[in-house]
Amino acid sequence: MSETKQEGITAKKAQDFDEWYTQAILRSELADYSPVSGCMVYRPSGYAIWEKLRDGTDKEFKKAGVQNAYFPLLIPERLLTKEQEHVEGFAPEVAWVTEAGNSKLEERLAIRPTSETIIYEVVRKWIRSWRDLPLRLNLWNSVVRWEFKHPTPFLRGREFLWNEGHTMFATREEADAERDQILGIYKKVTEGLLALPGLVGRKTDSEKFAGAVASFSIEHVMPNGKAIQGPDFHSDGQNFARAFELGFIDQKGERQLVWQNTWAITTREIGVMIAVHGDDKGLIIPPKVAPIQVVIVPIVNDETRSRVLEEAKRIRDLLQDSYLVRLDDRDYLTPGRKFNEWELKGVPLRLEIGPRDINQSQVVLVRRDTSMKRAAKMIEVVAEVGRELEDIQKALLARATESLASSVHTARSYDELKDTIAKEGGVVQAAWCGSEECEEGVKAETGAKIVNMPLDQPAVVGTCVFCGKAGIAIANFAKSY
Amino acid sequence: MSETKQEGITAKKAQDFDEWYTQAILRSELADYSPVSGCMVYRPSGYAIWEKLRDGTDKEFKKAGVQNAYFPLLIPERLLTKEQEHVEGFAPEVAWVTEAGNSKLEERLAIRPTSETIIYEVVRKWIRSWRDLPLRLNLWNSVVRWEFKHPTPFLRGREFLWNEGHTMFATREEADAERDQILGIYKKVTEGLLALPGLVGRKTDSEKFAGAVASFSIEHVMPNGKAIQGPDFHSDGQNFARAFELGFIDQKGERQLVWQNTWAITTREIGVMIAVHGDDKGLIIPPKVAPIQVVIVPIVNDETRSRVLEEAKRIRDLLQDSYLVRLDDRDYLTPGRKFNEWELKGVPLRLEIGPRDINQSQVVLVRRDTSMKRAAKMIEVVAEVGRELEDIQKALLARATESLASSVHTARSYDELKDTIAKEGGVVQAAWCGSEECEEGVKAETGAKIVNMPLDQPAVVGTCVFCGKAGIAIANFAKSY
Repeated sequence: MSETKQEGITAKKAQDFDEWYTQAILRSELADYSPVSGCMVYRPSGYAIWEKLRDGTDKEFKKAGVQNAYFPLLIPERLLTKEQEHVEGFAPEVAWVTEAGNSKLEERLAIRPTSETIIYEVVRKWIRSWRDLPLRLNLWNSVVRWEFKHPTPFLRGREFLWNEGHTMFATREEADAERDQILGIYKKVTEGLLALPGLVGRKTDSEKFAGAVASFSIEHVMPNGKAIQGPDFHSDGQNFARAFELGFIDQKGERQLVWQNTWAITTREIGVMIAVHGDDKGLIIPPKVAPIQVVIVPIVNDETRSRVLEEAKRIRDLLQDSYLVRLDDRDYLTPGRKFNEWELKGVPLRLEIGPRDINQSQVVLVRRDTSMKRAAKMIEVVAEVGRELEDIQKALLARATESLASSVHTARSYDELKDTIAKEGGVVQAAWCGSEECEEGVKAETGAKIVNMPLDQPAVVGTCVFCGKAGIAIANFAKSY
Repeated sequence: MSETKQEGITAKKAQDFDEWYTQAILRSELADYSPVSGCMVYRPSGYAIWEKLRDGTDKEFKKAGVQNAYFPLLIPERLLTKEQEHVEGFAPEVAWVTEAGNSKLEERLAIRPTSETIIYEVVRKWIRSWRDLPLRLNLWNSVVRWEFKHPTPFLRGREFLWNEGHTMFATREEADAERDQILGIYKKVTEGLLALPGLVGRKTDSEKFAGAVASFSIEHVMPNGKAIQGPDFHSDGQNFARAFELGFIDQKGERQLVWQNTWAITTREIGVMIAVHGDDKGLIIPPKVAPIQVVIVPIVNDETRSRVLEEAKRIRDLLQDSYLVRLDDRDYLTPGRKFNEWELKGVPLRLEIGPRDINQSQVVLVRRDTSMKRAAKMIEVVAEVGRELEDIQKALLARATESLASSVHTARSYDELKDTIAKEGGVVQAAWCGSEECEEGVKAETGAKIVNMPLDQPAVVGTCVFCGKAGIAIANFAKSY
């Protein structure tokens, strides 16, 4: 009945990454397919990770002065089409509601692919003068984009969960200043919670958000050497403000248009996290987002069961004020089967306890990331578990940071760029002249596009890797999801 | 530009409740209309109340062992139609997606009006034996029901936010035992957070959820004397399990169907809370769900401004570790205007501080619920504010409980029932024989339906208020939303 139940991963991450990834997600019970093609189910452990990422990020948003709100799921067609670039970007992927009950609707309603248009139409009434600004709203919701590309759980699908920040300022300077604040929050939570480093940079014009003036992103690198876009931030300038007549009276009594930004982090991050940290045994979930941080596995036989279980429960009770603990007292599975299951599910720390441990007033701690096993004094178990969890969190980020660094190459010539993309994958940093022709040329010949351009640029950029003319920026070239 | 900005409520709650309610919601900036008829916008303060109710309820669900998950927004038509009563109940209100991008879909997709069908189709694969049970899932999401009745913010609309709990058990006994647990949680959070009492009871067969065996609800009474359904709980028996072949192997190795429940609390509770507690000055928000619990209004003139503001900031800093505080230091509004605005918005406690207060080492506390004003020693301000907030929370529940009690009447005869419904409104408790004819008869003649039947029933019920035959239960008759 259940094909995946208690079945380990058979694919090797290094040899068949795509198959490994799918098995890791499904067999660990993080997610499942649904009867709607391209839409996935977030099972409890997958959703718990999202809750932790969402709540951790939300706390930072609130600290920064952003306020949450909720806007309708459905957007009338006439609104969606108000900003030209925006509608051209999204129309091919919009799911349309055309009927309700037994009636045909007079106007088609889009399921939000993103909420700019309905928000701006409504908040226009809320803003009268400079005193009502800034207005910094955020929504946590799901959006639908009816893509026809091959769906992959968490990484690409027709519905995903995200935050969408939509902010309005009186001046361009204030709007621009928000960029570092929000990208800083995204960096803090992806690194601090998910142990996922990334490359912060600006998108090229051909890659920017439909309707934005400039887009910025954090790009991650997957184990297969492909880049994948993480959280993003868009400076919308006054594009939407013009289309939606989003104005205010400034301090001089003159009417001005607001300056806007939009920004997002999505459930895709969970997929990247799984891909980056996992191994052939399964997931490795960073302690700060793990639904279970410590699993206690009692090592028992019929004779010792009651004594060991009693001690195991005592330890669980000690730990559970500080950590997310699960005591696996199922009597129909061997310890070995339990080890496999919790390793597959990525629980960062295992605590083993048997009769001998009790006699020696110790427990055995086994790290998921390194498989390192050591005894710890029973009397120090709370502190010892805390130390291990902190170490694991740090070690995962360190390992991922090292791995990212080793995936970033530089190229002084086009041959070098081509060669590195073909043989090593990852990101190649090279100078670019700013022309779409060169961007397209590299992509057509190597498969690598400009995923973004680092915010810190050298004083002298050098010549364009493709055409040899003067470069305007060092760009991050990579094959990409 | 904004018609509602800083505009007070002109309607009187006691005289024109509907108009008062609409003004209270819109002018306090809790919610707004949207360009999609029947779909509202939750503005930051309205959404903040929902976050507090959601998080408080979610904590209780987690403590009870329920796990959160997320299932797709869209449900294929073939699934929605699998359980006959269910589809008949929901089909007239389903919003259908028929097109995506430029393509017509082969099968219509329903925007979830509720998620039973897609959940059961998927979880069938997750359940193999009794060891996989119980499976207790919960979703926090939004649902769309395309009603054609007049929409009212929070109370009735085409999209609302809610929790939907969906649980599966090996035995009927376990499933039934969940009822008291979940209704207990709903009672705890509606009373404890929203200060909203209600009448717990069982629905009649004609009022039960489409697909359920029995439905239970908490009914509130609005200030206009109409009942309104709050959180509900449905015993689904094996109805869906049969339709979706949701089975498991029991301990004897035999195949059985699971027993199911579903349960929900929605954003409607916010509307009921506003209606029950508010007054002619505006909202009164219970401290436990208030986005701002204490507003500090400095009483200043040009000469004293800097000294008073400095002290006001010090007090804000003292309070903000324990409470949600806002210092209103806007220099372009008089204290009187500020008082009006925060009273309209329902902030439970106002703290005034002026030069004289500083000289006397005191602050002035003004309760929103009673308008009572008293001085408190500056040195005890943290504890004093805490005491007042606790008192306000208790007083609101006490007042609402008294008001509910005075809205519940009993009737021994049909004349008495008719008379009470017509003259006093509220709930009339009377015996009922269990026949749909009598239920319908009372409704046709008085406008009052059976909203539910108390769980605790007297040993002797008496004769049916309508037909005079033997009664099976005391029922709560009321005009209802």
